[in-house]
Amino acid sequence: MVSVLSIKQLMEPGSIAVIGASRNPSKLGAIILRNLVNLGFNGRIYPVNPNASEIMGLKAYPSVNAIPGDVDLAVIAVPAPQVPEVMRDCAEKRVKGAVIISSGFKDAGEQGMWIEEEVAEIARKAGIRVFGPNTTGLLNTSRRLATTFVPLPQLRQGDVSIIAQTGLFAGAMLEWLATSQKFGISKVIGLGNKCDVDDAEALEYLGDDQDTRVILMYVEGVRDGRRFIEAARRVIKRKPIIVLKSGRTEAGAKAALSHTGSLTGSSRIFNAVCKQLGLIQAVSFEEMVDLAKAFTFLPLPRGGRVAIASITGAGCVLAADACTEYGLKVAQLSSKSLEIIQSNLPPWTKASHPIDLEPLVENMPKAVEAYRLTFNVALSDENVDCMLAVLLAAHENWRNTRFWVSDEELRETFIEIRREHPGKPVAIHLIGGKQAVDRWSEILEEARIPVYPSVERCAKILAALISYAKTREASIRS
Amino acid sequence: MVSVLSIKQLMEPGSIAVIGASRNPSKLGAIILRNLVNLGFNGRIYPVNPNASEIMGLKAYPSVNAIPGDVDLAVIAVPAPQVPEVMRDCAEKRVKGAVIISSGFKDAGEQGMWIEEEVAEIARKAGIRVFGPNTTGLLNTSRRLATTFVPLPQLRQGDVSIIAQTGLFAGAMLEWLATSQKFGISKVIGLGNKCDVDDAEALEYLGDDQDTRVILMYVEGVRDGRRFIEAARRVIKRKPIIVLKSGRTEAGAKAALSHTGSLTGSSRIFNAVCKQLGLIQAVSFEEMVDLAKAFTFLPLPRGGRVAIASITGAGCVLAADACTEYGLKVAQLSSKSLEIIQSNLPPWTKASHPIDLEPLVENMPKAVEAYRLTFNVALSDENVDCMLAVLLAAHENWRNTRFWVSDEELRETFIEIRREHPGKPVAIHLIGGKQAVDRWSEILEEARIPVYPSVERCAKILAALISYAKTREASIRS
Repeated sequence: MVSVLSIKQLMEPGSIAVIGASRNPSKLGAIILRNLVNLGFNGRIYPVNPNASEIMGLKAYPSVNAIPGDVDLAVIAVPAPQVPEVMRDCAEKRVKGAVIISSGFKDAGEQGMWIEEEVAEIARKAGIRVFGPNTTGLLNTSRRLATTFVPLPQLRQGDVSIIAQTGLFAGAMLEWLATSQKFGISKVIGLGNKCDVDDAEALEYLGDDQDTRVILMYVEGVRDGRRFIEAARRVIKRKPIIVLKSGRTEAGAKAALSHTGSLTGSSRIFNAVCKQLGLIQAVSFEEMVDLAKAFTFLPLPRGGRVAIASITGAGCVLAADACTEYGLKVAQLSSKSLEIIQSNLPPWTKASHPIDLEPLVENMPKAVEAYRLTFNVALSDENVDCMLAVLLAAHENWRNTRFWVSDEELRETFIEIRREHPGKPVAIHLIGGKQAVDRWSEILEEARIPVYPSVERCAKILAALISYAKTREASIRS
Repeated sequence: MVSVLSIKQLMEPGSIAVIGASRNPSKLGAIILRNLVNLGFNGRIYPVNPNASEIMGLKAYPSVNAIPGDVDLAVIAVPAPQVPEVMRDCAEKRVKGAVIISSGFKDAGEQGMWIEEEVAEIARKAGIRVFGPNTTGLLNTSRRLATTFVPLPQLRQGDVSIIAQTGLFAGAMLEWLATSQKFGISKVIGLGNKCDVDDAEALEYLGDDQDTRVILMYVEGVRDGRRFIEAARRVIKRKPIIVLKSGRTEAGAKAALSHTGSLTGSSRIFNAVCKQLGLIQAVSFEEMVDLAKAFTFLPLPRGGRVAIASITGAGCVLAADACTEYGLKVAQLSSKSLEIIQSNLPPWTKASHPIDLEPLVENMPKAVEAYRLTFNVALSDENVDCMLAVLLAAHENWRNTRFWVSDEELRETFIEIRREHPGKPVAIHLIGGKQAVDRWSEILEEARIPVYPSVERCAKILAALISYAKTREASIRS
């Protein structure tokens, strides 16, 4: 009987063998090696290739057995039919874990399924933990570890971790996050066909991981429903779990079967489980990113009463609709708050809530002062739990107007607002020209205020924060 | 009895007076003037300001009466209480139409309401058509006409026209469209408080307008329901009408009342009318832009059978789910199509639909050839009406991989695909790094292939195209 190693040990390997490393830069094995070198993995890297003595300046070995030192993790990128032999070598070498990148297993029909079972059996007997096959495997920003075949940019370290049954996330999605988002990643666990490590075990690991505060999951099918539910029930008390489930329809389920060989199960049951446990369901990767941003940047609100301010009247109306439709309650501002707003308005305009920012901007010396006043008044109001605002990203082209705000004013003001009101989440929708919207988004999100391309998406994330706050409160009480 | 001028005459004015033009560049009147000059309005421009003899190099006049030539359109940007007197001057001058930019009328309570009625009465008696008050008014790209107080960039001329009860559209939204979208605008009609011209009349005008092919409407409340329904019934037979209705909830309705003094009416009735007439409802400005892009770029499909291709397996699964959930049918590719795909796959992979592009890219000499083959096979298939694809925007960082596609290859391939299959709409979702996604989006959208940030949004627009195709077919048959 071999003892079963925990995922934790494999996420922090001291040495990695890349089996199928290639000198041809377009081969998967070459990209995996390049990523490890470029990210600056702080352990030993051993390329394995019977036809090369050196790759990317590293000494290459004909087989994993020929490597002189210990090998903690083997990354396998050779065609499926060769994998059983490679796994036997790994067993002999007493490798601790393996990531099988290659596809052509359970995802490719019956013959592949037999190969997968053979490989899993060899690994099990030798006590080798396996990720995959058919996966991009592992990523750990604190160790500069990545086993993906997608060329990676430098990654921002953060507290969002991802469990994905697909290479998409550990691959192109990571590239998207790295180049478009201001939040950082801690770990990624690619599961692929899940011949050994599955969703439940990955979830248990991330639940205990000190560097992880928000968990994202892309799920086609759950392998062990009971264990998954137990893990989720335990973890959700401490960390939000955002789940994107695919294979929700018959056509989707059929596609999932040929993607990762997954049986997707009943959507109705999955939805009911999510609802009961308080898992946060996303309908797309886009929404998953919306939610990740909200949960990593923002505090959990104490209730669902939302303050609304908008630079356009239409924004006030649309935001009030969206908040109501997502189950938030448009706050009743205190009379004191309304009096302060009124005292800064021209006499012919009456203060009301939602707050129309336009007349305030017209009446005050600087637009940024109108914003500062409004956010401070609304967020100090004891009838307000959170806030949604629509601002005009006014950049160079607006320089000669009252709406113009400099980068410095914007940054200082919103850092201050966030600091002064640490317990109340704020979501912002920006209107204006693309360049200005991009620039303002960058500044606001560096201040940990998330920006969304519609008031509907602002309302949706606020509703998710509120819902999770309730889940957590209930779990503490119980 | 004075004859009522049509909107058409006011959208093509030969001369404009800007009443409230200012030398202070941050004043609304100054920006309006600057926009007209900068856009190159091809008619006469008369600034009106009692305290200036010249503004922006143009001779200024103390009142509209002092202008020597005819005035077709007066743009009024003085405080509400002064507007009745200005309107009397306009009546005396026999001005044809007026855009009242100023707010502080029905939008500002009872006192404003009286001023608005007085102004409307003076105009009515004099036969002056009025847009507003509380609006950004008119825009006509073919005449380089704009009356907005939002600093405008150069606008792309196109076939999308907008009716908006708010300055947001004619303002910041236009800036967004101009700087982020590849489609162009024909007309914008801002309605504001609608003391004269209303949604129904604007819709009738755009229905007849030769330069308009797609109509967008932002509506808080419809003034004359019967006339609106009649106009919509007539116009929808020829042009898609995309409607964003706000004031859908009690909180939203309250906000609408203080925004444009609108009574928003029952959402249920409005929804039922839209459904019965076949108007396309958007839930946000973001979705409205998604739809505008689809309707201006794409042909109407003949049915709802969708071909799916994706560079990631997860994309296949998610797209099949999304299409099914939006009422599309995942197409059954013909055996001939599957045979062609199979003949380009490695032997251990079996062709199926949704089409996984990854093994094709691995097996063919160039990624772009895999794309060309897949799109041509799918779009030539008589079982396919439209197509959804997920591609990897592979740019510089992917140059050494099989996924890489040059800008030229991408452009040529997709221009060819669009040309070869003119009757079948295609929507694309891109994954990858932000810079590459932006670049690919630009190239694809220049080829009139719309790109969306999720497969859900692709499926949603395809469903809207199909739905409108049915509406139109039914209206032709009836």
